[in-house]
Amino acid sequence: MPISPSQSPETPPLAFALASGFHCAATACGLKPSGRLDLGLVWSDTPCSAAGVFTTNRVQAAPVHVCRETLAAAASRVRGVLYNSGCANAVTGERGLADARRMRELGAAAIGAKPDELLVLSTGVIGKFLDMEKVARGVDALRSDAALRTAGDAARAIMTTDTRAKLSSTSFPLGGGTVHVAGFAKGAGMIHPNMATMLSVITTDARVDAPRLDRCLRAAVERSFNRISVDGDMSTNDTVLLLASGASGVTVDDASEPAFTGVLTGTCAMLAQQIARDGEGATRLVELRITGGASERQAHRVGDAIACSPLVKTAIHGNDPNWGRILAAAGYSGEAIEPERVRLWFGAHDDVQLLERGLPVAFDAARASGLLKQDPAIVHIELGLGGASAVVWTCDFSAEYVRINADYTT
Amino acid sequence: MPISPSQSPETPPLAFALASGFHCAATACGLKPSGRLDLGLVWSDTPCSAAGVFTTNRVQAAPVHVCRETLAAAASRVRGVLYNSGCANAVTGERGLADARRMRELGAAAIGAKPDELLVLSTGVIGKFLDMEKVARGVDALRSDAALRTAGDAARAIMTTDTRAKLSSTSFPLGGGTVHVAGFAKGAGMIHPNMATMLSVITTDARVDAPRLDRCLRAAVERSFNRISVDGDMSTNDTVLLLASGASGVTVDDASEPAFTGVLTGTCAMLAQQIARDGEGATRLVELRITGGASERQAHRVGDAIACSPLVKTAIHGNDPNWGRILAAAGYSGEAIEPERVRLWFGAHDDVQLLERGLPVAFDAARASGLLKQDPAIVHIELGLGGASAVVWTCDFSAEYVRINADYTT
Repeated sequence: MPISPSQSPETPPLAFALASGFHCAATACGLKPSGRLDLGLVWSDTPCSAAGVFTTNRVQAAPVHVCRETLAAAASRVRGVLYNSGCANAVTGERGLADARRMRELGAAAIGAKPDELLVLSTGVIGKFLDMEKVARGVDALRSDAALRTAGDAARAIMTTDTRAKLSSTSFPLGGGTVHVAGFAKGAGMIHPNMATMLSVITTDARVDAPRLDRCLRAAVERSFNRISVDGDMSTNDTVLLLASGASGVTVDDASEPAFTGVLTGTCAMLAQQIARDGEGATRLVELRITGGASERQAHRVGDAIACSPLVKTAIHGNDPNWGRILAAAGYSGEAIEPERVRLWFGAHDDVQLLERGLPVAFDAARASGLLKQDPAIVHIELGLGGASAVVWTCDFSAEYVRINADYTT
Repeated sequence: MPISPSQSPETPPLAFALASGFHCAATACGLKPSGRLDLGLVWSDTPCSAAGVFTTNRVQAAPVHVCRETLAAAASRVRGVLYNSGCANAVTGERGLADARRMRELGAAAIGAKPDELLVLSTGVIGKFLDMEKVARGVDALRSDAALRTAGDAARAIMTTDTRAKLSSTSFPLGGGTVHVAGFAKGAGMIHPNMATMLSVITTDARVDAPRLDRCLRAAVERSFNRISVDGDMSTNDTVLLLASGASGVTVDDASEPAFTGVLTGTCAMLAQQIARDGEGATRLVELRITGGASERQAHRVGDAIACSPLVKTAIHGNDPNWGRILAAAGYSGEAIEPERVRLWFGAHDDVQLLERGLPVAFDAARASGLLKQDPAIVHIELGLGGASAVVWTCDFSAEYVRINADYTT
């Protein structure tokens, strides 16, 4: 079963760095009233190949359109990503589009690139225009010595309601050399699978041509960012960007593509798990392991229905082994499950069984409750219909979620 | 636009009665640890025609199977409904099925009917067996003078986490006589559209043959119970039952069927609105009016996506005019909306406009916030794609929802 190891909930390593060939900078330009970091730039001195996966929402923010323009024009010579938090530049019409393009120009000028060689991301409140004066002053600051230069700061500049930065970094041997994949992400609310689910910027020093990079990223996103859910909502801005500098000198070819995709998937999965764990108001990560599916799609959809169920997520929050809600959610997933075949366990090692072929099993309630208290809380559902599996991550659902979301704009 | 008037949130009328020809009784047989009413019986002295709409969840409770058996065998001569709260008799396998059939026998014997002439309903915790001794003693009590005989008590016996009984009753002229439609419902959590969404027992004294009654009920449920959402969860037990005694002497024929269906839809919509308003932890009803759809199905699906969005529902709870979340939910509904055509208002009379053809409109935030505070809070979205419309009801989403659901079984 393709399960990536869950990361520990501690603070990410201080030594976090982007892949070779990439620089970064961050500043606070005033888009966030709090005065926190809200503008960041990741760039390379040399042209990179780049790939992106974007929201499938019919309402797409201006920077999503502009990223698509950049990738259509210059996927083999992208130089960087300029991003802001505090304002999503979504539902802003023609003016928003002009602002996103102007933001792209400002960023490109800052690193000596052509405008179509830059990507842009925005996150924050929907329906407000970007304050372009602040952005322009911020980009100036990014070029100055006053800008913060650590990758950790770059990761913090993309945060909104996130309580901590999401970072992942891996080095691995490939094609006789060593390749580095490192990235960061943001996302706490408005997270739903089956699309790019948040913002993420991932860098690698492998040399990968743009069409291959696109294929690798899509495969990785499908089994990572598309497998998490916090509240079932899909954002207008969700974007995952991957830039490959080639600085390692190692080229990914047909033979090494599966290994590269595997490591990239692991990096994305670690970021995705950090997002799910940091879900608004969440107290723990929940890992749903669905096995015995007739297809991976079926297993994924069953996991998705469970991951989106407020009744399941509140029960887990209360350490309540209410397996009936889990089974009921599987039942309305739209997939033709057969209840009389379903088996259910809690725990990393199927420690406590709750259902055997559709019927309740007597179990130790205190022990089952204790397993739900763990981080991650692990639930395993065997559908008994075939050999396909999927893992879906979500979080528990607390009263704090409501408090955070009842007054976000005000 | 087919909008039924929203009911005031006050306690339903004390004078509530079922339609002519129906009796009822209620008792507390001990299935609820609280000692509250948990067993009820609605019956007729003469055979009724009956119809039912059931959950589409793949996991279906034993009483759902048994109701289907009764309707398949005896839809023209049903005598009543025996129901319990405190235990859903779901995920209980063969034993659960035998228990539901035994419950049906006990109820039928109590009113001198054949076993296949009774319907049964159960609601409560999933995965526990019915205590048949308590049920048997309870049915004995229902036959005795000690049983409570008001329709209000009958409605209370079906409640679980409901904070109040849901009742609706209407008399109307039809075919030269007067016809009465009256029913009750339960449902607070695990409510989702696109299926029978809770338990409801509706009686009428019209004379309607069984196939026609089935057609009328399906049409009514489609525009009432299938248009509400509390948390997006679908139950294993959801059932709406309609019994027609014929005691009014008025026969519904081809000519009067539309009028009868219209009144029945109104009755069902009032029950549905009471369910949405009494959503777990809810403080108000939310009415989503979707107009300008290419089809009613499209309008319904857009409304459904908005109604299920925790971000929208928490914003309404916080009186926060965060229209971006509403638009984003419409955008991921799966329907091909065109954001640049969307218009959005708050208030029963489109009092405050927030979006004009996809772009934000400057609005009085205090006034918009005040409209969201109302019960019902009314949101109108014009899609600009056609002439079809739908109304969907939901509730706001409070921290109390989490508290209620974090420890339901324990």
